[in-house]
Amino acid sequence: MSQSLDIAVIGATGTVGETLVQILEERDFPIANLHLLASSESAGHSVPFRGKNVRVREVDEFDFGKVQLVFFAAGPAVTLSFAPRATAAGCAIIDLSGALPAPHVVPEANAPVLKTLGKPVQVSSPSAAATALAVVLAPLKGLDIQRVNLTACLAVSSQGREAVTELARQTAELLNARPLEPRFFDRQMAFNLLAQVGKPDADGHGVLEKRLVSELRELLAAPLLKISVTCIQAPVFFGDSYSVSLQTAAEVDLAAVNATLEAAQGIELVETGDYPTAVGDAVGQDVVYVGRVRGGVDDPCELNLWLTADNVRKGAALNAVQLAELLIKDLL
Amino acid sequence: MSQSLDIAVIGATGTVGETLVQILEERDFPIANLHLLASSESAGHSVPFRGKNVRVREVDEFDFGKVQLVFFAAGPAVTLSFAPRATAAGCAIIDLSGALPAPHVVPEANAPVLKTLGKPVQVSSPSAAATALAVVLAPLKGLDIQRVNLTACLAVSSQGREAVTELARQTAELLNARPLEPRFFDRQMAFNLLAQVGKPDADGHGVLEKRLVSELRELLAAPLLKISVTCIQAPVFFGDSYSVSLQTAAEVDLAAVNATLEAAQGIELVETGDYPTAVGDAVGQDVVYVGRVRGGVDDPCELNLWLTADNVRKGAALNAVQLAELLIKDLL
Ligand SMILES: NC(=O)c1ccc[n+]([C@@H]2O[C@H](COP(=O)([O-])OP(=O)(O)OC[C@H]3O[C@@H](n4cnc5c(N)ncnc54)[C@H](OP(=O)(O)O)[C@@H]3O)[C@@H](O)[C@H]2O)c1
Ligand SMILES: NC(=O)c1ccc[n+]([C@@H]2O[C@H](COP(=O)([O-])OP(=O)(O)OC[C@H]3O[C@@H](n4cnc5c(N)ncnc54)[C@H](OP(=O)(O)O)[C@@H]3O)[C@@H](O)[C@H]2O)c1
Repeated sequence: MSQSLDIAVIGATGTVGETLVQILEERDFPIANLHLLASSESAGHSVPFRGKNVRVREVDEFDFGKVQLVFFAAGPAVTLSFAPRATAAGCAIIDLSGALPAPHVVPEANAPVLKTLGKPVQVSSPSAAATALAVVLAPLKGLDIQRVNLTACLAVSSQGREAVTELARQTAELLNARPLEPRFFDRQMAFNLLAQVGKPDADGHGVLEKRLVSELRELLAAPLLKISVTCIQAPVFFGDSYSVSLQTAAEVDLAAVNATLEAAQGIELVETGDYPTAVGDAVGQDVVYVGRVRGGVDDPCELNLWLTADNVRKGAALNAVQLAELLIKDLL
Repeated sequence: MSQSLDIAVIGATGTVGETLVQILEERDFPIANLHLLASSESAGHSVPFRGKNVRVREVDEFDFGKVQLVFFAAGPAVTLSFAPRATAAGCAIIDLSGALPAPHVVPEANAPVLKTLGKPVQVSSPSAAATALAVVLAPLKGLDIQRVNLTACLAVSSQGREAVTELARQTAELLNARPLEPRFFDRQMAFNLLAQVGKPDADGHGVLEKRLVSELRELLAAPLLKISVTCIQAPVFFGDSYSVSLQTAAEVDLAAVNATLEAAQGIELVETGDYPTAVGDAVGQDVVYVGRVRGGVDDPCELNLWLTADNVRKGAALNAVQLAELLIKDLL
């Protein structure tokens, strides 16, 4: 049996897919053949991998029998269309689109779940927000967290390539005093904050907000955890920022919290008095940055944190590759 | 006795001061003589008022005996230096700098406090964040709010003129792919979020965060209200945005909340499904915009709100003028 896998990445030309391919190379993932797939629009383009240009092909025409592992990074509709074919061909699936009813796993939070999966393996890499939060909150479970109050300030890249282009275009128009014509976003995104990401449901919650609540409860194995969340769209290209206020059952010992975070995997703790930013710290990095670790102004059972993480890398592509690394022994 | 007042505005060339002078004119405030004061730097400049250019003078040389009312809008140090002279001359003071130990008042929240003031009157217009929050939370007191969880996303103009110039300069540098040289802010502000406004204290709290907690408790006459707050600096020129999650003693009736907010003074409620933004709605307006009124994902005792307000106008200058209007009968 070969010590390398044949792999497909669907959505290989996208924000997440391109980074995923880079990370597979950086971490020297044992790949025999890499198949890069996308829509007809970029079929024929190529993506660099290990010093060669790998041709991108159309997913419709792909024979899933050629690979043992498929990364789905092209949106929920594409996952729903092609996952049945991949499964029928016996492929393991790591889904980044949130479309499959597969367990969500973040290695730093709930890696043991991987041992419970049936065959062929299907596992979900959660939303970037749930991933970052889980990395930081899992080691803090000893605090007996009663409630998480979260404002998630998302980078435009969390909505893909077009959103990135749109923020740049709007900013340039405004700086040049030209009239603003919103396209991808339905209003001014440059120099503004949007209070909602995607269409809300009848109760006013965004899809992503509800997804975050259920994913975070699953990742922390805390099905009754109270979570209030507002996802906002910030005029930042890459890197999410999270303002987190936790309510705990017992008084918070800040020295112990700092020691726990310092020792935890996947976290970079920024010294008290300073703080991380999306652009200055998180982008391009493999860790979630944590700063502004402080209690309440006068509530001893409150812990406040400020997190920043690369939404594309740590929040998606890297987590998916970490999952693949943990699964590889079963797949070879 | 004249039906008009002689008034001084200290900091008349600043972000808040200029707007204050505009609002005095717009609202036809009964002014006999208007004295505009600033530092030696802009003494000699002039500011338009009622179709004339009013010369700006140096505050050091001002005879406070000439006026009955002084607005302090030039920072805490200037208030501390000159308030004693104004008081000695019998002037009423409306302080926008937060430096005086005078009661904080937002007319929509706690106007009756004005009747309890000694002579000469001294009153504080609170921070922009406390002002906006008080306008919205005061009518919701019937909810028996147990806790306010707030992430305040502040416009750069909340730090004055220089911060506005700096965001524009940084953005242009980045769009033109020139190396970034932060000046006013200590790091990249354009396309980024800063987790802290000003230097934190030994416990990690920002001055503004502690001020907000104490001002909001005072404005709502709720000295024990639990408030968790993080103030962040957003790459927005004008207009603050507030992500607010309230915990209440009893179950939240959303229809009743909407009706209360609809009927309240100083608020514009945005229909469910839509939301206001700083730039698109709040800037230049006299109201606090409220949107995303929704419960918890599954907590019946949770109420989430998204507020936007013009930090300079509604958060400072207009509130100060509203205070003056309520005090005028006592001053004439
Ligand atoms: N961006 C993030 O921060 C982030 C974080 C976590 C999870 N995710 C999830 O990851 C997925 C990809 O997001 P993204 O940000 O990378 O989006 P993106 O930049 O817009 O890229 C979309 C990718 O999907 C491909 N695609 C689109 N329609 C297709 C079709 N009909 N058939 C085959 N391929 C198709 C595109 O290929 P073409 O070049 O042919 O158009 C492109 O490669 C989404 O499900 C997203 O929710 C994103
Ligand atoms: N901006 C807001 O959103 C906001 C909201 C609520 C409260 N406030 C408070 O309002 C005050 C003014 O803020 P701002 O944003 O308007 O600041 P700003 O734009 O920087 O303007 C500062 C003003 O103060 C004057 N000044 C500075 N040093 C002085 C001195 N030594 N003597 C006399 N005048 C002096 C300046 O005059 P020169 O032209 O001579 O320099 C200018 O008129 C601050 O206390 C601030 O905390 C601001």
